Amino acid sequence: MATTWTTPPSELLRADSDVDLAAIDPSSSPGFAGDKQDAARALEAGRETLGDLQERFFAGSRHGGDTGSVLLVLQGMDTAGKGGIVRHVVGAVDPQGVAHHAFKAPTEEELAHDFLWRVRRELPGPGTIGVFDRSHYEDVLIGKVRRLASPDEIERRYGAIVDFERELVDQGTTVVKVMLHLSSDEQRSRLRDRLDRPEKHWKYNPGDLDERLLWNDYQEAYQTAIRRTSTDEAPWYVVPADRKWYARVAVQRLLIDALAARRPVWPAAEYDVELERIRLAST
Amino acid sequence: MATTWTTPPSELLRADSDVDLAAIDPSSSPGFAGDKQDAARALEAGRETLGDLQERFFAGSRHGGDTGSVLLVLQGMDTAGKGGIVRHVVGAVDPQGVAHHAFKAPTEEELAHDFLWRVRRELPGPGTIGVFDRSHYEDVLIGKVRRLASPDEIERRYGAIVDFERELVDQGTTVVKVMLHLSSDEQRSRLRDRLDRPEKHWKYNPGDLDERLLWNDYQEAYQTAIRRTSTDEAPWYVVPADRKWYARVAVQRLLIDALAARRPVWPAAEYDVELERIRLAST
Repeated sequence: MATTWTTPPSELLRADSDVDLAAIDPSSSPGFAGDKQDAARALEAGRETLGDLQERFFAGSRHGGDTGSVLLVLQGMDTAGKGGIVRHVVGAVDPQGVAHHAFKAPTEEELAHDFLWRVRRELPGPGTIGVFDRSHYEDVLIGKVRRLASPDEIERRYGAIVDFERELVDQGTTVVKVMLHLSSDEQRSRLRDRLDRPEKHWKYNPGDLDERLLWNDYQEAYQTAIRRTSTDEAPWYVVPADRKWYARVAVQRLLIDALAARRPVWPAAEYDVELERIRLAST
Repeated sequence: MATTWTTPPSELLRADSDVDLAAIDPSSSPGFAGDKQDAARALEAGRETLGDLQERFFAGSRHGGDTGSVLLVLQGMDTAGKGGIVRHVVGAVDPQGVAHHAFKAPTEEELAHDFLWRVRRELPGPGTIGVFDRSHYEDVLIGKVRRLASPDEIERRYGAIVDFERELVDQGTTVVKVMLHLSSDEQRSRLRDRLDRPEKHWKYNPGDLDERLLWNDYQEAYQTAIRRTSTDEAPWYVVPADRKWYARVAVQRLLIDALAARRPVWPAAEYDVELERIRLAST
């Protein structure tokens, strides 16, 4: 795995207050020295690495070690590949250690609260990898484009998000924010594919086209959201997503690096191993 | 896959009001015409079948189809392999479609309610496979063996469980209850393995040995619980578990059969596919 990446994606894909989405090629594969087949091999090898790190992390959280968590935030236009990341990257991890939540349009109850209320309820527990398929960022994306909130409220939210995520990090959560960066042409092709294949019909919604017509507004909303909320504590990564194989292997590596940075170690026994061997033998 | 099983495990492993645990060999592999390698192949093939069924089931639940769920209840003595089932069988399913919950010793808040209160809160949603790693059955297992409740209350619980599960089934849940049936010798060997391997130390708890000393009481409590709560609506399966490969492939097949019995089909488009193709082409 170490040999396939010339530079880790955490360095190359980081997006900050000066990000220019239009300047990032969605069909590029920055830092990955290989093609689709190499990526498939890297993904397969990474499954084991990720699974091993997660198990150590989980074990430690239960035995006096690191009680923090990792939160992967997935954002992107329709068909950008969020579901594929969940299935092919997160799917490698023991279900016991994953808390996945897909945020839909808010319910009436949720709308009656601040936009972060429903998000707080889904935060991952100790030793767990939380995955947000969409997130509080929808409230400054569709919220802005569709004017579901006033401009003042949208402004307030950028600050509220920065504060919220800082609080999470202070409490021991590693926050990994990923925007799957798709081109408009690739989206058209993926939507057409959904229409062409009966087993994909359920994934298509005529409303997706209405959002597609607002493509530029969404790109602008994404760019502003990223510029305003990418911090050293909770940085954004813009992952080129026209090539699914690249996006998957890149997000997998981001997750692996996030877990590895926590240096999870197998917890030491809190009992006398020799004594237990003797006790066990007598049963 | 169809050729590896001579008889489906749903027929062979079903346990009812006359079950005699002592008569079931934990090292047997009923109905499976093959060895460990065949089982590995069957498990691999089954991953795809299970994933495909789950995706149809999930899709249907979102588009006017079956809004029921599947609940897999996993019970067994320590080291019986519940975690391995979660990882190797459930792990094949898209994390989006799985709701896993491990029940621990009840909290004070949970103890202040009826024993089913905390269970109701973790039931799977529409189109989802719920997995209970331990469950309400602990309240008639350790609850009985350790006398955490009065004999009258234990008696009451058998009936309450039958009523509760009937209610779930009436509401559209397929309930699959699995007891991983381990031998005492195999448990000793697995506990020793945990003591011998530092990366397994965290899975060992000196308290496990205290429970092991009550092996016969637990076997009796399991047998009574199964006899009293196995119904046509929510049957128990006793899965020989000394061979991990058998237990995994058997539970996988039970899950596949449970999903297949719901006959999930890809939902039909609720929009005019041709019209959408034209709309899309113009964007």
